[in-house]
Amino acid sequence: MQLGMVGLGKMGGNMAGRLRDKGHEVVGFDFDPELRDVASLSELAQRLEAPRTIWLMVPAGAPTLQTITSLTEVLEPGDLVIEGGNSHYVDDRRRADELREMGIGYVDAGVSGGVWGREEGYGIMVGGDPRDVTRAEPVFSALTPDDGGYVHAGGVGAGHFVKMVHNGIEYGMMQAFAEGYELMAASDIVDDVPGTFDSWREGTVVRSWLLDLLVRALREDPELEAIRGYAQDSGEGRWTVQAAVDHAVPAPVISAALFARFASRQEDSPAMKVVAALRNQFGGHAVTKAADDPARTPRS
Amino acid sequence: MQLGMVGLGKMGGNMAGRLRDKGHEVVGFDFDPELRDVASLSELAQRLEAPRTIWLMVPAGAPTLQTITSLTEVLEPGDLVIEGGNSHYVDDRRRADELREMGIGYVDAGVSGGVWGREEGYGIMVGGDPRDVTRAEPVFSALTPDDGGYVHAGGVGAGHFVKMVHNGIEYGMMQAFAEGYELMAASDIVDDVPGTFDSWREGTVVRSWLLDLLVRALREDPELEAIRGYAQDSGEGRWTVQAAVDHAVPAPVISAALFARFASRQEDSPAMKVVAALRNQFGGHAVTKAADDPARTPRS
Amino acid sequence: MQLGMVGLGKMGGNMAGRLRDKGHEVVGFDFDPELRDVASLSELAQRLEAPRTIWLMVPAGAPTLQTITSLTEVLEPGDLVIEGGNSHYVDDRRRADELREMGIGYVDAGVSGGVWGREEGYGIMVGGDPRDVTRAEPVFSALTPDDGGYVHAGGVGAGHFVKMVHNGIEYGMMQAFAEGYELMAASDIVDDVPGTFDSWREGTVVRSWLLDLLVRALREDPELEAIRGYAQDSGEGRWTVQAAVDHAVPAPVISAALFARFASRQEDSPAMKVVAALRNQFGGHAVTKAADDPARTPRS
Amino acid sequence: MQLGMVGLGKMGGNMAGRLRDKGHEVVGFDFDPELRDVASLSELAQRLEAPRTIWLMVPAGAPTLQTITSLTEVLEPGDLVIEGGNSHYVDDRRRADELREMGIGYVDAGVSGGVWGREEGYGIMVGGDPRDVTRAEPVFSALTPDDGGYVHAGGVGAGHFVKMVHNGIEYGMMQAFAEGYELMAASDIVDDVPGTFDSWREGTVVRSWLLDLLVRALREDPELEAIRGYAQDSGEGRWTVQAAVDHAVPAPVISAALFARFASRQEDSPAMKVVAALRNQFGGHAVTKAADDPARTPRS
Repeated sequence: MQLGMVGLGKMGGNMAGRLRDKGHEVVGFDFDPELRDVASLSELAQRLEAPRTIWLMVPAGAPTLQTITSLTEVLEPGDLVIEGGNSHYVDDRRRADELREMGIGYVDAGVSGGVWGREEGYGIMVGGDPRDVTRAEPVFSALTPDDGGYVHAGGVGAGHFVKMVHNGIEYGMMQAFAEGYELMAASDIVDDVPGTFDSWREGTVVRSWLLDLLVRALREDPELEAIRGYAQDSGEGRWTVQAAVDHAVPAPVISAALFARFASRQEDSPAMKVVAALRNQFGGHAVTKAADDPARTPRS
Repeated sequence: MQLGMVGLGKMGGNMAGRLRDKGHEVVGFDFDPELRDVASLSELAQRLEAPRTIWLMVPAGAPTLQTITSLTEVLEPGDLVIEGGNSHYVDDRRRADELREMGIGYVDAGVSGGVWGREEGYGIMVGGDPRDVTRAEPVFSALTPDDGGYVHAGGVGAGHFVKMVHNGIEYGMMQAFAEGYELMAASDIVDDVPGTFDSWREGTVVRSWLLDLLVRALREDPELEAIRGYAQDSGEGRWTVQAAVDHAVPAPVISAALFARFASRQEDSPAMKVVAALRNQFGGHAVTKAADDPARTPRS
Repeated sequence: MQLGMVGLGKMGGNMAGRLRDKGHEVVGFDFDPELRDVASLSELAQRLEAPRTIWLMVPAGAPTLQTITSLTEVLEPGDLVIEGGNSHYVDDRRRADELREMGIGYVDAGVSGGVWGREEGYGIMVGGDPRDVTRAEPVFSALTPDDGGYVHAGGVGAGHFVKMVHNGIEYGMMQAFAEGYELMAASDIVDDVPGTFDSWREGTVVRSWLLDLLVRALREDPELEAIRGYAQDSGEGRWTVQAAVDHAVPAPVISAALFARFASRQEDSPAMKVVAALRNQFGGHAVTKAADDPARTPRS
Repeated sequence: MQLGMVGLGKMGGNMAGRLRDKGHEVVGFDFDPELRDVASLSELAQRLEAPRTIWLMVPAGAPTLQTITSLTEVLEPGDLVIEGGNSHYVDDRRRADELREMGIGYVDAGVSGGVWGREEGYGIMVGGDPRDVTRAEPVFSALTPDDGGYVHAGGVGAGHFVKMVHNGIEYGMMQAFAEGYELMAASDIVDDVPGTFDSWREGTVVRSWLLDLLVRALREDPELEAIRGYAQDSGEGRWTVQAAVDHAVPAPVISAALFARFASRQEDSPAMKVVAALRNQFGGHAVTKAADDPARTPRS
C-alpha cells in the first residue's frame, strides 16, 4: 500500500527501507533535504492518494506535537495518522480525540528492535480503533518478522502503553544482568566472566537476546574498559514507574533499575552528601557541648 | 566414558538418560530401589573401574554432605567427585580441600535447564582443577547442547558461584516480567495481555526463554487463575544477595526480586503491622492526652 | 485575627479549637450542621470582614476543587484563600493563577501532626507570595508549637511540595522501623522486642517521635496481634516517588516503602502469580515434548 | 564497682570517663602508653580484685578476637568479659561457649550514641546469662541516660543482634532523609531547604535525633558543599541485610540504603557499564550484519 513517512532518521529511514523492500510505496518527508522525497507536509499530502495513511517517526514531545498540528492543516477527513514514536499513552488519547473531531483517524504504534529491525523485523504494538488498525495492517505486517512480533493491544494508547511496559521490563532485565556481571567481576573466584555469559546462551534459564548482545559487547571489550558506567534513560522507564504508582502496582525491580540509571549520571550524589554529613555529625567531629549549641540539643 | 551417578531423581535421572543416549556408561545409585542399578555406594565403587568418576545429584545441604562422607569410605586416591547439586561455593572449597588430602579430586558443576535439559541439553558451569575438569569433559560435552552451554569458570567453587549468579539474574528477570504483567493487568487499557507477551517473542528487546515460558503459561491459563501468587526461593537467590553484600556490590534488583518472594509467602506481614500500628497512632485513635500518658509524651 | 475555616472534621475542628484557644476569631463552615457556625459559604463571606482570610481543610481532589470554585463566587478582590489540605503542588500553582486573575490571593499550607497537633502544635509548611504569607502569619504562629514548626518554603506550591517530601521521608522511616521489628521478631535470639524499642528512646541514633509512637503501640499490644499488616497510602507517598522520577532523583527507599504498602493490600499478587507460573514451567510440570508443542519450542 | 576497660580510644575513653564521673573505679589498658593506667593485660588482671569484670572496647574482628584470647591467659574462673565492640552475634555465641568452658562469663553489649554519649548517656543493649548481666548492671546504669536507654534483650548475642538491627534501621532513616533532601534540592520550587528541615523539628511526624543532626549540618554548610557524597558502611548494615535474608524477612529499605552506600564509593560502576554497553549494542552502533557476525545472531 501507499504510506507517507514523516521522519527519516535512523528508525524512520530503516523502516521506510524495509517497507519498500516488501513492495510498499513510501513517500518520505524529513527536515533534512538529503533524506526526503518531498519538501513539505503539504507536498506529502498532495503526493498521497486519499484516504491517506501517514506514519510519524519523529522525536517524542514537542516535535511530535508540532508535526501533528501541521498535519491537521493538510490532511482531510478519512485520512489516518499512525504515531510510531515514543508518545505517552495519555497524550495519544487526547490527540486521537482531537483528530477524531476532524474526521482523521489515529493509531499509536510502539516499535521495538532498534537498528536490528531493518533486517530482522520490528516488534510492533498497536492501539486504536479496529477499523483504523485493520486498514494499516499491510504496513504492520511488512514491518514485523515473518512469524510474529505484532499485537493489536487495545484502543488508542494501548500500543504505547504496552511498549512502555516492554521498556520497563527491559530496564529490569538489563539491570539484572548488570548486577550479575558486577558480582562476578568483583569476586576473585571467576576466571572467565565473558566465557560464562557466552555459555549461558544455550541451555540456561537466562538465555535471551539481551544476553546475546552482552556477549557481543564482551567480545569487543572483555572488561568493558572503553565504556563508562553512565546510562541515559529514554522516558518509558520513568513512565512505567509512574504508571505503576498510579495503579498501586508494586514495581520494585523496574524502579530500582531506573534509579540506578539516575545515580549513574551523578558526579556527586546530594543524597549521599546527607548520609556523609550525618555520619560526620554523630561519629565524632560534632563535639560542641550541648549547652553551647545554638541548635537546641535533642531532648535536653 | 564410565560414570557413577548418585541421585536419580528428576534431574539425575534425566541426566543419566541423556548420557546413555550419547553413548556413555552410567551406573546409578539412589535410595529408591526402583530407580537404581546398584544397591549401595560400595557396590557402585566396585562396579566402576578405577580411576572412578562419580557425579552427585542429591539435595543440597546435609544429604550432599552425608553422601560425600560415605563416598570417601569407598573411593580411592585418583577418583573424582563431581558435585552437580546446588552446593554453596564456600562449602565446595572446604570439601575439595578435605578430599584432596585423600587424593580424591573434586569438581563443582552448576546445572541449569530443568526438565527441558534432557532434550535440549543443560547449561553446565564448572569449577575445579584443570586436570580434573579435562578428565570429565566427555560427560560435560554430552550433557550440554551441541553448540554451547559449557564453561570452565575457574577453580573449585567457581562453577557453583556462577550458577548462583545465574539464578540471581534469573530472579531479577522473572520479577521484571512479573511487574510488567501486573501493570498491564491492572490498567484498563490493555485488552490482550497474553497476546502482547506473545508478540514480544519476535523482534523485541525482551525476547528470551523466560518470555517463551510465560507465553506457554498464559496459553494454558490466560489470567493465571489457577495459580497462587506464592513463590519459593531455592537458596541461590539468597546466596547471591549475601555474596553481593560481602563484596560491596549494589544488587538492588536481585534483592528486590528475592524480597518479593519472601513477602509472597507471608499470610500477614509483621513489618506492615508496624506500619499500620504507626498510622493508627498518629492518625487519630491515640487521643490519650499527653499528661495522662504512661508513655512519656515526645518532647513535652 | 479573624479567620474563616471551611471543613471542621478531625483536623479542621482541632485547628479551629487551637486557634480560638490562642485568641483568634474563627467562623466555621461544614456540611455537617452540628459542627458549623454558618450555614453556607455566602453566609461565611458575609460574617467575615474584608479583606477575608479563609482556611480550607477539606478532602483533597474534587471536594477541594469544588469548594474553591464555590468560594470564588462569594469572595472579593483582596481576599485570601489558604489551602491547608493535601493538594498536589502542581494543582496549587494552577489554582493560584486562576484566583490571582480575580484579585484573590492563594497560599498553600502543608500541615503535619495529626491528632496530637491540637495540644502540641502542628508543623506548618507554607508556599505563597510573601505579602499573602505575612498577612496570615498570626494564624500560622498560633497553630505551630511555641519554638518552631514553621517554614515559608517558597512560592505557591512550595508548602505542599515540602509536606509531600516530609511524608515521603515518613514512609521510609516507618518502613525502616517495620523491617527492624520483623527481623527481631523472626529471630529466635531477641527475648524482649518491645523492651528493645523502648530502650532505644534514649541515647541512640534512632530516637524519634515515630519510635515513641511505636513504643506506645507495643505497650498496648506487644505482638501487634490485633493489627493486620495492611497499610493504606494517602497520596503524598505516590507523589513523592513521581516527583523524584520527574526530577531524575534516585528514591529507592521511599519507593520501596510505598511499594510495600501496595503489596500489603493485595490478597493475591498478580506479579507473584507470574513468578510462580514461570517456576512451574521450567521446574518440572511442563513436560510436553518440544515437537508436540503448539507454542514453538524456544531455540530448538 | 571496679571495672577493667580494654581499649581507651574515642569510645572507650569517653565511657571510662563517664563511669568515673559516676563513681566507679576504672582501670584502663590501651596500646597507647599515653592513655593507659596499666601496661599489660596481666597487670590489669593483677590490679583488679577477683571476680573481675573486663569491658572490651576494641575494633571488631581480629583485634577483639586476639584480645579475648590474651585475656583468657590472665583471667580466672568467675571473671566476666563484656564485649562492647561491634562483634557479630554469631561470633559472640561461639566465644561465650569457649569462655564458659574456662568458667569465664561473657556478655555482649551493643553501644549507641557516638561522641554525644559521654554527656547524654549511651544506649546499651545487652545479651547474656541473667546472672552475668545482673552483676554488671551498675556499669550499664552509669553508662545509660537517667531515664532509659537500657535493655537486656536476650541470651548471649542478643545485645549485638539488636544493636545490628538498630543500625540497619538507622541506615534506612538516614537514606530517607537523604532522598528527601535531594528531591527538594533538585526541584526549583523550594527556596529554603535548610529552613524546611529546621521547621520539621517541631510538630511533625519526622522529628528525630537524626533530623536534629541534619539541621546542625545544614547550619554549618547549607548546601553541603564541603562534603563529598561518599559514605562508608560499618558492618552492621551488611549483617542486618544478611540476617534478613537468612530469616526470609523482606528488607527492601535497609538493603536499598546499604546499596546506595556501596554505589557512593564507586568511581565507575561495573554494573552500569553493562547497561551502557547493552544500550550501545541495540541502540545503533552495532550494525554488523547478522550473516557476518561471529556471534550467532539471535533467532535468525
